[in-house]
Amino acid sequence: MPTIEQARAWYVDSDPVHDFDHVLRVYRMAERLAEAEGADVDIVRAAALLHDAEGATPGHESRADHHHASAEFAAQVLTSEGWDAGRIAAVQHCIRAHRYRGTEKPESLEAKILFDADKLDVLGAIGVARVIGYATLAGTPWYEPPSRQFLETGKEVEGEAHSAYHEHLFKLRKVRERMFTVTARAIAEERLKYLDEFFERLIDEWNGKR
Amino acid sequence: MPTIEQARAWYVDSDPVHDFDHVLRVYRMAERLAEAEGADVDIVRAAALLHDAEGATPGHESRADHHHASAEFAAQVLTSEGWDAGRIAAVQHCIRAHRYRGTEKPESLEAKILFDADKLDVLGAIGVARVIGYATLAGTPWYEPPSRQFLETGKEVEGEAHSAYHEHLFKLRKVRERMFTVTARAIAEERLKYLDEFFERLIDEWNGKR
Repeated sequence: MPTIEQARAWYVDSDPVHDFDHVLRVYRMAERLAEAEGADVDIVRAAALLHDAEGATPGHESRADHHHASAEFAAQVLTSEGWDAGRIAAVQHCIRAHRYRGTEKPESLEAKILFDADKLDVLGAIGVARVIGYATLAGTPWYEPPSRQFLETGKEVEGEAHSAYHEHLFKLRKVRERMFTVTARAIAEERLKYLDEFFERLIDEWNGKR
Repeated sequence: MPTIEQARAWYVDSDPVHDFDHVLRVYRMAERLAEAEGADVDIVRAAALLHDAEGATPGHESRADHHHASAEFAAQVLTSEGWDAGRIAAVQHCIRAHRYRGTEKPESLEAKILFDADKLDVLGAIGVARVIGYATLAGTPWYEPPSRQFLETGKEVEGEAHSAYHEHLFKLRKVRERMFTVTARAIAEERLKYLDEFFERLIDEWNGKR
């Protein structure tokens, strides 16, 4: 089993929102879900540590392909640790299937758990920090009143910024529906409630009302 | 009285955390405080719109001196609007005295209100967004457990990051004590409670506990 200290070295190139702190949070959450759901904890742990680790492979590809690069890198690491082919394939499936818009869907319980743990990290107080951090880096506002067109279709009108609040409405509010395990859905419900209330308060404060 | 649309043009060079949205929030809050405290609303409004507006003066100085540049710029704008010298001086005092670490302290009720409104913008959900936004831009973590030395003295040990949580403990938790008006202190109390709870939850989630 790779250690956390070994894993840290695989994430040198990461951006501030997909950094090693994200990996550690997913690792701890995946462990918790695996115990609650009765999954193979070691497969889940290895998959969590390796799920975004394309950075260590030379000439790594764009983020769109990163789950393939990470799956290949995982095979190298786990082969050198002496894992058998079946368990390596199980970890690789978790990694390839964890993307929100990926073509390979999670089939095993372990893959469902990695998917859910990764998505929980966009909700709650962490979700607040991530969506605000992204918007700040992109130079888009934290809040701008969404147009009627955006509310109905998810497409901004000419000149309308995709603020952090837009991302909340367009993506974050829908993440829970995509989750697989009962344990993750219960956590997601609480975290989504928190995120909703954050934006309610942000908008009130924005207008000098709270 | 300068309009909000006029004022927007004075803030082209601003950074994402001191942008025109900040000015508008301070404007609305200052207006609310002025009404509650029985202050001269027009002086407060003009001071709020102009308080960070050094950007429009050519060759503007560093942020440390920005309240002087802004006060001079305010005099130009208000003279051209036909304001009398006494009211211009009152606005200038508000602007020069609004800095947390400034040497000129707020004497008038209007200056106390601008100070308080500006400081309220670092608390609550807005405060969350600002402290997270700053940390993200600076490349420092959102959370790192503070050392015992930091908790006792406010100074980090070698290699310790000044995370968003450090800034919360070191600065944001103390802002309320510095405020002048009863109205602002009541709002600050609520907003500080929210900020405290945000970090409590962030730390729990960070450790996979919520």
